[in-house]
This record gives sequence, C-alpha cells and structure tokens, in this order.
Amino acid sequence: MQLIRERIRSEGRNLGQGILKVDTFINHQVDAGLMMAAGEELARRFQGRGITKVLTAEISGIAPALATALALNVPVVYARKVKPVTMPEETFRETAPSHTKGRLVELFVSPEMVSAADRILVVDDFLASGQTIAALIRIVAQAGATLVGVGAVIEKSFEGGRQALAGYDVPIEALVTIRSMDGGQIEFED
Amino acid sequence: MQLIRERIRSEGRNLGQGILKVDTFINHQVDAGLMMAAGEELARRFQGRGITKVLTAEISGIAPALATALALNVPVVYARKVKPVTMPEETFRETAPSHTKGRLVELFVSPEMVSAADRILVVDDFLASGQTIAALIRIVAQAGATLVGVGAVIEKSFEGGRQALAGYDVPIEALVTIRSMDGGQIEFED
Repeated sequence: MQLIRERIRSEGRNLGQGILKVDTFINHQVDAGLMMAAGEELARRFQGRGITKVLTAEISGIAPALATALALNVPVVYARKVKPVTMPEETFRETAPSHTKGRLVELFVSPEMVSAADRILVVDDFLASGQTIAALIRIVAQAGATLVGVGAVIEKSFEGGRQALAGYDVPIEALVTIRSMDGGQIEFED
Repeated sequence: MQLIRERIRSEGRNLGQGILKVDTFINHQVDAGLMMAAGEELARRFQGRGITKVLTAEISGIAPALATALALNVPVVYARKVKPVTMPEETFRETAPSHTKGRLVELFVSPEMVSAADRILVVDDFLASGQTIAALIRIVAQAGATLVGVGAVIEKSFEGGRQALAGYDVPIEALVTIRSMDGGQIEFED
C-alpha cells in the first residue's frame, strides 16, 4: 500500500534491533484517515469470506483492527493484557513473548465475545515474529471459532512471522513489507 | 444519544462500586459502527472550533478517540501508560489515580506529537471522577497547546468529574449520562 510505504519512508525511523519508530502515524499518534484507508484495504483483501469478528490485542492493534472492523461492518474484540474487573472468572488466556518488553505478556479474552459460530480475522499493526498473532490464533482455537485469515499493516519479513504462522494454513495479508532493517536502512519488498 | 443509552439498557451491567460493564460494545468488544456514530456525534458537538488534534489515554479511550478524529479529519494521539522504547528521553508525563486499578497510572506523551500551535479535544470512553482527563489536560498545558473541550461517550455524573473539570472552563460533552448506580440500578439523566 503506497500511502503507508511513503509515510514510512518520510517519517519512519530505524532505531536498531529491528525496532521501527512509526509513532507519528501508527502507534502513538494515529493518522485517522490513513488508518481507515488501511482498514478498508485489509477488509477488501478478505472480502466475501464471511468474517463475523475482528480480533486483535491491545494496545497498538486497536486502531487498525477497529478500522478494518468498521469497513467489514463487524465488531472488533481486543484481547486485554491485564484482566479487567469486568471480565468473568473463566476467560480464554494465552501468553506471548514480547519483543520490545523482553518478557511474557498475557492475553485475556472473555468467552462472552467469541464463540464457535464466529469466523475470525486476526489483525495487528505489525507482523514481526508472529508470536502475539499466534497467541490470538490459539484463543480463536480455544473458542472453537474459525480462523479466516491474518492481516497486518506492516510486516517485518526478516523476523519470520509468516513462516511461524504457515502451519495455520490461512491467508496472511500485510499492506507493507519490510525485508531488511540492517545497517540503519529500511528496505521494502518490491 | 439514544443508540448508546438503549445499548446500556440491554447489555450494560452494574457490577457495584460504580463499575459499569459495557465490554460487549465499548471496551473489550467494540461495536465499530456504534463507535463511529459516537465519534461523529462528538465531532458534531465541537464543530467549527478549529480542533487540530484529539488526545486520549490508552486503552479504552482509543476507539472513541479514533472515531472522533476520523470524523473531524484530524490525527489522534493516545497517551501511553508504559513509556515505549520508541519515545524520546524527555516526554510530557502526568499521573492519575486509577479507580479500577487502585493505584497511580502514568501517562506519557511524546513532545513530537503536541505543540503550542495545537487546539486539542480530549476524548475518553468514560467521564467518571475526571482524574484521567485532568491528567491529559495537564499534558495539553505542558505542551502550551489550547484545550478546546472534553468529550466522553458515557458520563457517570455521580462521580463528580464535571465539577472536578469545571475550573478549565471548556465545554464538556457526554453522549449518555448516568446519574446513579445505587442499589444495582442504572439511572440515566433525562
């Protein structure tokens, strides 16, 4: 998606260790119009697949997942990392290692929100190692729901997430793919 | 806003101690279309005031703030509660007591995102005690920006937030106002 690639070119910064700073338009400040365009494009790529719900993880997944859900006209569920007091005792719960936090994060989804009848699109801002997305997919499985696909705004293909998720055998769509951040560069897939 | 009031009537649950469970459409699962309608209504109420940016706090503020920003055609900034590695050393930082967490939470905003030229609308899902919103307003002041107003989806007027924020002398808009949750009830303002 040309708009996002251009924006990464002009505002993105390679902070080293695979960390891409895009907090002026993706994950601290959000360009609402750009995010809506991203959601519409993800929705277009999964059109006609009978998606009933979009699933993401707080925090930075919320904006792209909401935009995608709006375009698909379905609800979005964001997994919580701290179990809120409003959640029932028994929840779906998975853990994933956090690259930037250097520890395990927990993901909680209330069983009220996802059922065996659901057809789920998992959406996140980044597809990197794929570990957070894999944890969301395990929650889909716990619920007995059907995973329809995975969508991300930015893929860092050099972190191997697509390979890690290949076993789930669903379409994986990224709007922009970065193949290398070596030597301070940001190199896109063609 | 009738749509939201009806939804609280049908799905909201009073868990006691002022805690309203609305996680089937506001803050765990989000009804994307309803949230967009809420954002459009908040945008309408602040129309013509030259807003350049919407400011909220993660996590549950993101959805209504993004919807409002989309309707106003401006960016949204969400204050982070844990300082990410992508944020510069020096940030705007405020603390607010969390009702549901029983401790102080920190709010971080990068000085790259808010400047003295900005005219800011602060948006959150709830206006309760007003303490989180007051912390966001102090960040607006730290940046030397202009506070234009405060918008919330649901106000719990019995928690006194509107009074706590009165000194800032800006319009405060809530789409639905709950005046009491005593005795397990949910009573709306007319």
